[in-house]
Amino acid sequence: MLRTVNCGELNLSNKGKEVTLCGWVQRSRDKGTLLWIDLRDRYGITQLFFDETSNVDLIKKARSLGREFVIQAKGTVIERESKNPNMPTGEVELKVSELNILNEAITPPFTIEDETDGGDELRMKYRYLDLRRNAVRKNLELRHRLAIETRNYLDSQQFLEVETPVLIKSTPEGARDFVVPSRMNEGQFYALPQSPQTFKQLLMVSGFDRYYQIVKCFRDEDLRADRQPEFTQIDCEMSFVEQEDILQTFEGLTRHLFKKVKDIDIPALPRMTYADAMRNYGNDKPDTRFEMTFVYLNEANNNVVGGKEFKVFDDAELVVGICAKGAANYTRKQLDELTEFVKRPQVGATGLVYARYNDDGTIKSSVDKFYSEEDLKKWATAFGAEKGDLMLILAGGKDKTVKALSELRLEMGTRLGLRYKNAFSCLWVVDFPLLEWNEGDPNLLASLAGRWHAKHHPFTSPKPEDIELLKTDPGAVRANAYDMVINGVEVGGGSIRIHNRNLQAQMFEVLGFSKEEAQKQFGFLMNAFEFGAPPHGGIAFGFDRLCSLFGGADSIRDFIAFPKNNSGRDVMIDSPSEISDEQLIELSIGVVKAEK
Amino acid sequence: MLRTVNCGELNLSNKGKEVTLCGWVQRSRDKGTLLWIDLRDRYGITQLFFDETSNVDLIKKARSLGREFVIQAKGTVIERESKNPNMPTGEVELKVSELNILNEAITPPFTIEDETDGGDELRMKYRYLDLRRNAVRKNLELRHRLAIETRNYLDSQQFLEVETPVLIKSTPEGARDFVVPSRMNEGQFYALPQSPQTFKQLLMVSGFDRYYQIVKCFRDEDLRADRQPEFTQIDCEMSFVEQEDILQTFEGLTRHLFKKVKDIDIPALPRMTYADAMRNYGNDKPDTRFEMTFVYLNEANNNVVGGKEFKVFDDAELVVGICAKGAANYTRKQLDELTEFVKRPQVGATGLVYARYNDDGTIKSSVDKFYSEEDLKKWATAFGAEKGDLMLILAGGKDKTVKALSELRLEMGTRLGLRYKNAFSCLWVVDFPLLEWNEGDPNLLASLAGRWHAKHHPFTSPKPEDIELLKTDPGAVRANAYDMVINGVEVGGGSIRIHNRNLQAQMFEVLGFSKEEAQKQFGFLMNAFEFGAPPHGGIAFGFDRLCSLFGGADSIRDFIAFPKNNSGRDVMIDSPSEISDEQLIELSIGVVKAEK
Repeated sequence: MLRTVNCGELNLSNKGKEVTLCGWVQRSRDKGTLLWIDLRDRYGITQLFFDETSNVDLIKKARSLGREFVIQAKGTVIERESKNPNMPTGEVELKVSELNILNEAITPPFTIEDETDGGDELRMKYRYLDLRRNAVRKNLELRHRLAIETRNYLDSQQFLEVETPVLIKSTPEGARDFVVPSRMNEGQFYALPQSPQTFKQLLMVSGFDRYYQIVKCFRDEDLRADRQPEFTQIDCEMSFVEQEDILQTFEGLTRHLFKKVKDIDIPALPRMTYADAMRNYGNDKPDTRFEMTFVYLNEANNNVVGGKEFKVFDDAELVVGICAKGAANYTRKQLDELTEFVKRPQVGATGLVYARYNDDGTIKSSVDKFYSEEDLKKWATAFGAEKGDLMLILAGGKDKTVKALSELRLEMGTRLGLRYKNAFSCLWVVDFPLLEWNEGDPNLLASLAGRWHAKHHPFTSPKPEDIELLKTDPGAVRANAYDMVINGVEVGGGSIRIHNRNLQAQMFEVLGFSKEEAQKQFGFLMNAFEFGAPPHGGIAFGFDRLCSLFGGADSIRDFIAFPKNNSGRDVMIDSPSEISDEQLIELSIGVVKAEK
Repeated sequence: MLRTVNCGELNLSNKGKEVTLCGWVQRSRDKGTLLWIDLRDRYGITQLFFDETSNVDLIKKARSLGREFVIQAKGTVIERESKNPNMPTGEVELKVSELNILNEAITPPFTIEDETDGGDELRMKYRYLDLRRNAVRKNLELRHRLAIETRNYLDSQQFLEVETPVLIKSTPEGARDFVVPSRMNEGQFYALPQSPQTFKQLLMVSGFDRYYQIVKCFRDEDLRADRQPEFTQIDCEMSFVEQEDILQTFEGLTRHLFKKVKDIDIPALPRMTYADAMRNYGNDKPDTRFEMTFVYLNEANNNVVGGKEFKVFDDAELVVGICAKGAANYTRKQLDELTEFVKRPQVGATGLVYARYNDDGTIKSSVDKFYSEEDLKKWATAFGAEKGDLMLILAGGKDKTVKALSELRLEMGTRLGLRYKNAFSCLWVVDFPLLEWNEGDPNLLASLAGRWHAKHHPFTSPKPEDIELLKTDPGAVRANAYDMVINGVEVGGGSIRIHNRNLQAQMFEVLGFSKEEAQKQFGFLMNAFEFGAPPHGGIAFGFDRLCSLFGGADSIRDFIAFPKNNSGRDVMIDSPSEISDEQLIELSIGVVKAEK
């Protein structure tokens, strides 16, 4: 090794020791006859000390070093005159006797500091420099730790890690596939897996009993802010289980990770049905760090807003609100901001009604013209509001209003400081619908519009008691499917699978597959079900998302070493890019540019 | 869980316990009023017992079960009358009180036994059934264990596991890339990585210090018998190291794996130069489980075969042989077989000369017409041959003869039983040449023929003392490159990397890149070298190969859950396959079939 110790390990116990360090020049302080350099590596920072009186040439050489030079320094560990108690190596410094420049550095385009002056684009282009920053490196160290502990837990539970293939077959009934032309099979293509779903099910048919893999998956979507075309899953499957067994096992994983990685004890995870989640939070991944649940105001059996000549409420399919505790003192400006917020196109409401329950016991609303104090008292009762609370109400079409109120709820949670980065509220959402109607999802092939689409995937088992509904009312069929939600983020989801050939065939039929298509695309799986398939089920966790959650960050990008931007480009290596004609010819493909 | 215990855990200590088992019907024995079923799962086999006197309906149901039916059996653990000491559960059986069929099974196309009646093709098509066989499953369990222990060791050595991207950029200077058309970037392509080489080097530039990953890599090669288009590497890189540090660290990994997984203590790994390996074994991955090194017979300073009117030897560029200990008693038939062996096209020799050192002290050769007993004594001295030994000699052009003799040496090792499956001889081969001349390697793009090609890869550092030769005699430059060889298999290889921009640019120039090409394809890396790149180096192990070696098998295929065949096809899922016009149009590509 070019070093004998690293930059994070020296302390007073090493005083007097001769050592060699390697690292990067973080910064230097030149006091004329004395000079100090902070030397950085992955493990920490150690201060180097140069003294003109002991060696003129050496301090001259040290003075010539620029930021981010890579150097090797030999010397003696001495006690510092002014100690820094905030760093592990803060009591000592290295009195340098020999200095070697291992590599020079031109000035980086942004500062290598926690608070850097580099913008997003610049940092992506020079990602290898961005990764030098402590903050980013710590994210990836966290990721490493989470992966290790995930494997430790699953190994202790007798899961076997099995690698499934990356070059598979295109089955574009889900999101779009990335495909790979085959040189040896002219006109044919592999596809990259959106998940190892069918393979892990086959492993269950093979009797592997418990499988896992931390695995790259691929989805050719129009990228939203926080999606990546390639992403990592903790992918798991178990045999001879019922839903409860999977919930217990992976609740165990979650608790293990929180304990080992963050030393946090997570209580048993509550279960919430999809129906309840939608009714109480307007969201199938509710942020349960705070309550503020939905209050329905115009239901047939309990209408506290109707019949008062207020057309907006009278004509609305749904009038629903939330009660923001202690927010009655919101200023006009704050309330206007909230109104602006709900009217944003992404939120989509047409307006906001509010009512303040003042400390003096009066209630004042933005619709006092229509509602008496007595009417408003009824609202307060419905909301369970107390003095000091603010009632916020939206009205309109059902789906749109629910969605908008869910956004408003989250916004209020943020504004009221209820969404603590270091509080973790975990739950299971269960009893998802099996199917949803595809009106024309832009992330699916256009030819799939106007069909039922599997909400989870086509291999999810309907609840046995709902199977009959597949023929009469597919939208009402509930699935043996579950999501793990933490702080309003869906970190994992899975289901009990179909393990019966006929039921699987029926499912494909509901999804609009012809018998031939189903056989062509998934015949291998349906055939496998005939050779003794055990009851089985599983789950997959979004590993990038889990890491960002553990890291207390909103974006996954800083938990991925080399992420792509929103156009799916890696701007550092400049990919994707054109390939040579020689390559195209060998692959039997040509580029067909669209007419402009 | 549908079971309370698995099929591998019951023994006499559980006698009298009520338990529930799930699994597959391996076989049944029907003695009329009594019936036994072997129930199988991943963990073992437990015998189920049915007794007509206690329940007529139950034994009837049991009798209806076919091979590979999936069942659930409840009952009481009882002591067996006739115990089977060869299986962990052999002292007990389950007296069944309730039997549920979880799934039926049609008859599998081959038997699910260690010695199956299924041929290769059938087993590949029904891979999910082949994976039910103990032998295959045990291979994948071994793989799991090796992965876990690899990570444990590297984690203990402060390596960080970092995932690098799968969608990268095509740089077809090595083997052919698989490419992926980008829908969002018309006419552009990603490539799948042949290795994470440039990314791991960038991680070193980022100061990650020690990186590893067990990672899928891709190479679009014409597949040889034991190659896969996707394969798995243990990929590692370290900073501030010299070659010796890497050899020590990964020798440590190898010893850790042998100890933990096979409880074998591996001695310190010897080092052998490439030159010595080629001279003594004719092979840069010598099988050192046995000696039988090459003996050169017509070298200028030591010619023991020339001048005796034997034209074959006199005209040969090279006369070289091996001494097979104790094989002097080989029959004429055996010697003829060896002659046939060396004349095979894959071996390529034109003939074989032999000389027996008989027990009576006489030496008899196949060329006695030209060589006297005294001449042959000189041969024996050169070979270090003793009574009972057989000398085998080839002659011809140098490269061809060396290659043929290497094959013959391995063949003799096999015939003499010197290549024990459970003996492991590990070594490092070092000082590889940096470059080799590409005469037209079919695994490279045709446009790369007639150029120097990097033997390891273009990022490998030449030995500092040889850098000057890059300009005058590129073929003579030695690299700081090393391979780990176990039992004649190259299980890993790596190098110290170039970390200087100018040297890297010079390397690309030698490889025939124009400045523009080098900048376009690898500019990001060369730029990174300007921002303070540390000295670094690394290694990659072929994980599939390592697993097969630990498993004592020759082929990697049975250590991969879902391998592809020699045409790169997955015959189980029938991939690659055609994709829809809708997909092609979205991807801006078309299929261009070659004229027939």
